[in-house]
Amino acid sequence: MTDRVRIVEVGPRDGLQNEAAHLSPETRIAFIERLLAAGLETIEAGSFVSPKWVPQMAGTDAVLRGLGARPGRNFPVLVPNERGFDAALAAGAGEVAVFAAASEAFSQRNINCSIAESIERFRPVADKARAAGIRLRGYVSCALGCPYEGEVDPARVVAVTVALRELGCYEIAVSDTIGVGTPDRAASLVERAADAIGIEHVAVHFHDTYGQSLANIYASLQKGVRVVDAAAGGLGGCPYAAGASGNVATEDVVYMLNGMGIETGVDLEKLLDAAEFVAAAIGRNPVSRVHRALRPAAYA
Amino acid sequence: MTDRVRIVEVGPRDGLQNEAAHLSPETRIAFIERLLAAGLETIEAGSFVSPKWVPQMAGTDAVLRGLGARPGRNFPVLVPNERGFDAALAAGAGEVAVFAAASEAFSQRNINCSIAESIERFRPVADKARAAGIRLRGYVSCALGCPYEGEVDPARVVAVTVALRELGCYEIAVSDTIGVGTPDRAASLVERAADAIGIEHVAVHFHDTYGQSLANIYASLQKGVRVVDAAAGGLGGCPYAAGASGNVATEDVVYMLNGMGIETGVDLEKLLDAAEFVAAAIGRNPVSRVHRALRPAAYA
Repeated sequence: MTDRVRIVEVGPRDGLQNEAAHLSPETRIAFIERLLAAGLETIEAGSFVSPKWVPQMAGTDAVLRGLGARPGRNFPVLVPNERGFDAALAAGAGEVAVFAAASEAFSQRNINCSIAESIERFRPVADKARAAGIRLRGYVSCALGCPYEGEVDPARVVAVTVALRELGCYEIAVSDTIGVGTPDRAASLVERAADAIGIEHVAVHFHDTYGQSLANIYASLQKGVRVVDAAAGGLGGCPYAAGASGNVATEDVVYMLNGMGIETGVDLEKLLDAAEFVAAAIGRNPVSRVHRALRPAAYA
Repeated sequence: MTDRVRIVEVGPRDGLQNEAAHLSPETRIAFIERLLAAGLETIEAGSFVSPKWVPQMAGTDAVLRGLGARPGRNFPVLVPNERGFDAALAAGAGEVAVFAAASEAFSQRNINCSIAESIERFRPVADKARAAGIRLRGYVSCALGCPYEGEVDPARVVAVTVALRELGCYEIAVSDTIGVGTPDRAASLVERAADAIGIEHVAVHFHDTYGQSLANIYASLQKGVRVVDAAAGGLGGCPYAAGASGNVATEDVVYMLNGMGIETGVDLEKLLDAAEFVAAAIGRNPVSRVHRALRPAAYA
């Protein structure tokens, strides 16, 4: 194995958009500042989905403007369509993320169109991004299972991954949206995606619903993946709520990688500070065994 | 990979001995009955350590007598010395477990003797066990780290593993007592132990303090390990207590193995029932993401 993994911190977007608490742009900026202080270089800063649907992400333009440009740091934002892209561009975004599901049922229920239609919807976004010099990242959701269809054919996942790559995404995050995947299946999928688009374009994005994330990440690392999405404090699903499905905690990922001698550039203590800051803001404890083990007082 | 793993359920011993609640022998038998109903074949039923030191295990003789002999099922009990062995034998034990630390500091603080002395202390136990036709299992604690010494030399772990094997243990559980290990180190240690005593005599026993257990188990499976210790409901460490260090939850292990197409003979639904029974008895929720995902109502 090579010795460096890039962590894409998705707490301020994928994490917070699934929390009951709605944080102000100022608080989200303060969270991101702490993540930057911990050494994270890629931090998904928000989304330009309508606040009618995702009120947690309202004011993402203010978040981007508040952060401004930082050398060597990226703040991707999720955009659902051309209008969202225009807003992101106006707010100074340097990178945007688009998404498609690997499950037709999920695509229909989540964004009310087919997978193919969702890809087409992003074509003008991709064109504009290219023209404006904006980097494009992609997500394939339901890559290891769908809440409506159950198992998802890996060939379908690979096809959507290829479609996003052809659209112009420099990197595609194979995403276990509901956290049902297990390591051999994760590894097999990563291998097939790498065969199709090259391992350097594959990231993994796992939710820890069934506690399988670290095993899945380990299996993916063995296949050569070197980009891992995670959220400080395991944001994204209250552990006491039914159907909780938070992202794998960045703390847990960094601890594992540290133990493997793989560099991340992340200072674990400062990361714990960032996770505690946002945990206090949303009013509950970080969901991370590493956090609990290293900072038991935070759970008192 | 071959297609079967034997799970050694340690909840009634390693789990319950580290819980604040003290359950009666009757309740512990009722818990074990539910584990049997779930299909678990090897269930550590208790210990013959003095109740002065481990009051949670008082009445293990009554537990063994209450269970009686069950065809195809094993109920190992932990014994700390010859006196403990005699008591276990009198209660009808068919299998006993002995233990040694891989860390001198831990050995001194935990059982007040050197590692070498602890091995010698078990020699009469091994002799008696052999004479009585009692199977002998071994634990090497602090195999991936020590609370007093920090890192532990793998050569030391292997040496203790070999000593226990030479004593007559049919199987030695390499045990990450404080849960600090990460997958590459776990895999490397398993490989070295297997080189020394044969993979068929190596089991893994991980505590989930830092959430690394499933990744460590996955890495160990890749090295050929086919025996995994676990505790229903992640017994052994209250998640709200400082220093909590429960065993990996059997539910989480079974879910991962099911997803990998590896047979365990365990019915996951009935295992959840068993975990909920003991959780109610000790007065807190199971510590298992799989449990929370599959039975959110149990966490309401």
